[in-house]
Amino acid sequence: MDYESLLADRTTGMSASAIREILKVVSQPGMISLAGGIPAPQSFPMDLIEELTAVVLKKYGALAFQYDLTEGFLPLRSALAEYLKQKGIFLTREEIIISSGSQGGLDAIGKILIGKGSKVAVEAPTYLGALQAFNPYQPEYVRLETDDDGVMPESLEEVLRCHKVKFIYLVPTFQNPTGRTLPLARRVQIAEILQRHGALLFEDDPYSDLRYQGTQIPTIKSLAPDNVIYAGTLSKIFAPGLRIGYLAAPAPIQRWLVLSKQGVDLHTSTFNQALAAEYLNGGYLKEHLPKIIDLYRPRQQAMLAALDRYFPKQFRWTRPQGGMFLWAEGPEGFDLDQAYQEAIRRNVAFVPGRYFYSHVGEGLATMRLNFTMFDETVLTKAIKILGEVLAEQLAAQAGAATREKLKIAGR
Amino acid sequence: MDYESLLADRTTGMSASAIREILKVVSQPGMISLAGGIPAPQSFPMDLIEELTAVVLKKYGALAFQYDLTEGFLPLRSALAEYLKQKGIFLTREEIIISSGSQGGLDAIGKILIGKGSKVAVEAPTYLGALQAFNPYQPEYVRLETDDDGVMPESLEEVLRCHKVKFIYLVPTFQNPTGRTLPLARRVQIAEILQRHGALLFEDDPYSDLRYQGTQIPTIKSLAPDNVIYAGTLSKIFAPGLRIGYLAAPAPIQRWLVLSKQGVDLHTSTFNQALAAEYLNGGYLKEHLPKIIDLYRPRQQAMLAALDRYFPKQFRWTRPQGGMFLWAEGPEGFDLDQAYQEAIRRNVAFVPGRYFYSHVGEGLATMRLNFTMFDETVLTKAIKILGEVLAEQLAAQAGAATREKLKIAGR
Repeated sequence: MDYESLLADRTTGMSASAIREILKVVSQPGMISLAGGIPAPQSFPMDLIEELTAVVLKKYGALAFQYDLTEGFLPLRSALAEYLKQKGIFLTREEIIISSGSQGGLDAIGKILIGKGSKVAVEAPTYLGALQAFNPYQPEYVRLETDDDGVMPESLEEVLRCHKVKFIYLVPTFQNPTGRTLPLARRVQIAEILQRHGALLFEDDPYSDLRYQGTQIPTIKSLAPDNVIYAGTLSKIFAPGLRIGYLAAPAPIQRWLVLSKQGVDLHTSTFNQALAAEYLNGGYLKEHLPKIIDLYRPRQQAMLAALDRYFPKQFRWTRPQGGMFLWAEGPEGFDLDQAYQEAIRRNVAFVPGRYFYSHVGEGLATMRLNFTMFDETVLTKAIKILGEVLAEQLAAQAGAATREKLKIAGR
Repeated sequence: MDYESLLADRTTGMSASAIREILKVVSQPGMISLAGGIPAPQSFPMDLIEELTAVVLKKYGALAFQYDLTEGFLPLRSALAEYLKQKGIFLTREEIIISSGSQGGLDAIGKILIGKGSKVAVEAPTYLGALQAFNPYQPEYVRLETDDDGVMPESLEEVLRCHKVKFIYLVPTFQNPTGRTLPLARRVQIAEILQRHGALLFEDDPYSDLRYQGTQIPTIKSLAPDNVIYAGTLSKIFAPGLRIGYLAAPAPIQRWLVLSKQGVDLHTSTFNQALAAEYLNGGYLKEHLPKIIDLYRPRQQAMLAALDRYFPKQFRWTRPQGGMFLWAEGPEGFDLDQAYQEAIRRNVAFVPGRYFYSHVGEGLATMRLNFTMFDETVLTKAIKILGEVLAEQLAAQAGAATREKLKIAGR
């Protein structure tokens, strides 16, 4: 039978995540993949699971396995209200709703706000999972310019002056893919711009607890609470397989989020929410988070040291104070595609940065490097190999350019 | 700021589930609520959770807490492929995808197939959660006529001849809300009609394992595999709080379901999927299911006996061989609204059947009665009270009709 003719208009616009396709290719044995964006399994509190399960069974019994409120399990929402205080976010538990991972929050916001042709402002480059959540609702993306400090406030100002945008999507801290963090001064400026334009920001904050140096910077939510939907997740500080994210949205938005979620999945796993509640409430997170940081900090330092040592001088890269990624950029005009292919042949993988741009043809010289999945020795080896590949490709492309020039000159 | 103006067109069509609103009202202490649609907590295998957790930790370790395939955790898909054989459904594990509850499957099908104004054929009455999943995608519903044996094949034939429908939605076994089951002969007819018209059916099958009498009837999926998306869930035979459903769709549909799910929630909880895999694989389901049936069978029998004894003669009701619901119907012209209010005052609740119709003004004399949540004594008491309320209301409405007639005659 003819299935294609049954598809909704929106569906033909869905496409496989290029990164997921890359991840499939590079998951073969022997590959050192810096392409992933996932936490190290060693970061999961595996020794706590049985204990947490016992606590949940004792404390909540069958309630933890029953249908529950769409808004989320109350003990978890209470725990999150408490936890968010340290981020300068002061909310009642009723103001927090649980999503099925932060992906669930992205989809929900897309679903209730984006109509066909609605404008959504995103950083260039931006988080690909957000685009994948938004795309089925058929938005048009408006580009926000960035520099080493993240999005530029004057670009936001310009965009809000010229376009009627539904919302702005930012990852202000240790951004995926660049690792960049918006400094406080810019956050203050952005909060003021949002308020002046009556604009809505989706502040996606999955990484801010993974800070290896420096001090915490206030969330934009804390600076302009009525203009910000704040999204967090326990995927990086507990376990991603539990799919627990959360949203703090202004009340009128939250009302629609709940209605939408009723239709999408009724509610997020009660058992997993109960485990998360006890992980936060029982002081386990406070105890476990330093272990995650102690695991990742030396990995990031090793990658940075290896980049200094092995990467060609024509490259520059970010030096984030936390998160899971570094972002490297070759000279203008350099195309990383060949280097990517060659690196795979030598069993090292990364994600070409161009996949993180909403417009085709941008970011050809950029790459995202993940440092959470391997130990220092392996990371150093991988960067050494990548450095060699890049140097060869730079030489080859320079040679080709010279030959091209000579050819033109010789005509 | 003005949030309303940011909403997508589809969002203004979302509305709170009337049933969820009813459930809030009737959850006060002392109320005997036959309004719910949830399994009894005593049906959950609580004594197995710690054992299953230990097995999962030993067998899968950190993998059960890591990001996983969008399609679902492979050991669970293998277990489900095995389990579905007894339902006459023969699939490889690759042909099954896991959804976040069956609600997740309903949303996914709505998302990939329904555009604004797309026609979807549904039974009258039908499962409300399906309408809630589909509504945001703005379908038009086409009504399928039903009788005591469920949907009438000639109505399906007529609908497919006159309308271009995207898909048909049916709950063929122990339907919610009516408890009705399509007999085999009708299933065969429906399979033939689907094949002849090249039409697609969403066969939602959450209840078929809860059979208290009689023998299993083949699924429509087993009769017309290429024309049916089959949806199941572990909510009624394991625990709903784990949010584990699954879909078996023809390959071209499955491909789009996976793309859609990537954007919606990346994947369903790995840990819960691993628990479910071990529940099925370890033979626990086989051992536990008879206990669930032994819990519910006498409850249903008690409710039927009480209906025979206490309900007014003008009422008729279904006598399903399984499931969670009975459906009762008063005489034509009777409106249950007053009876509902009066029953609440006497601390007994049910769901007025009109909420299960996609068109307003239908089913005013109908009611859904759930029998899973209370023991036999309480159920008998509740039906006795309801019977008294209904008898009073019938008398009152008959009296009012007589007075109205006399008034007209006296003019």
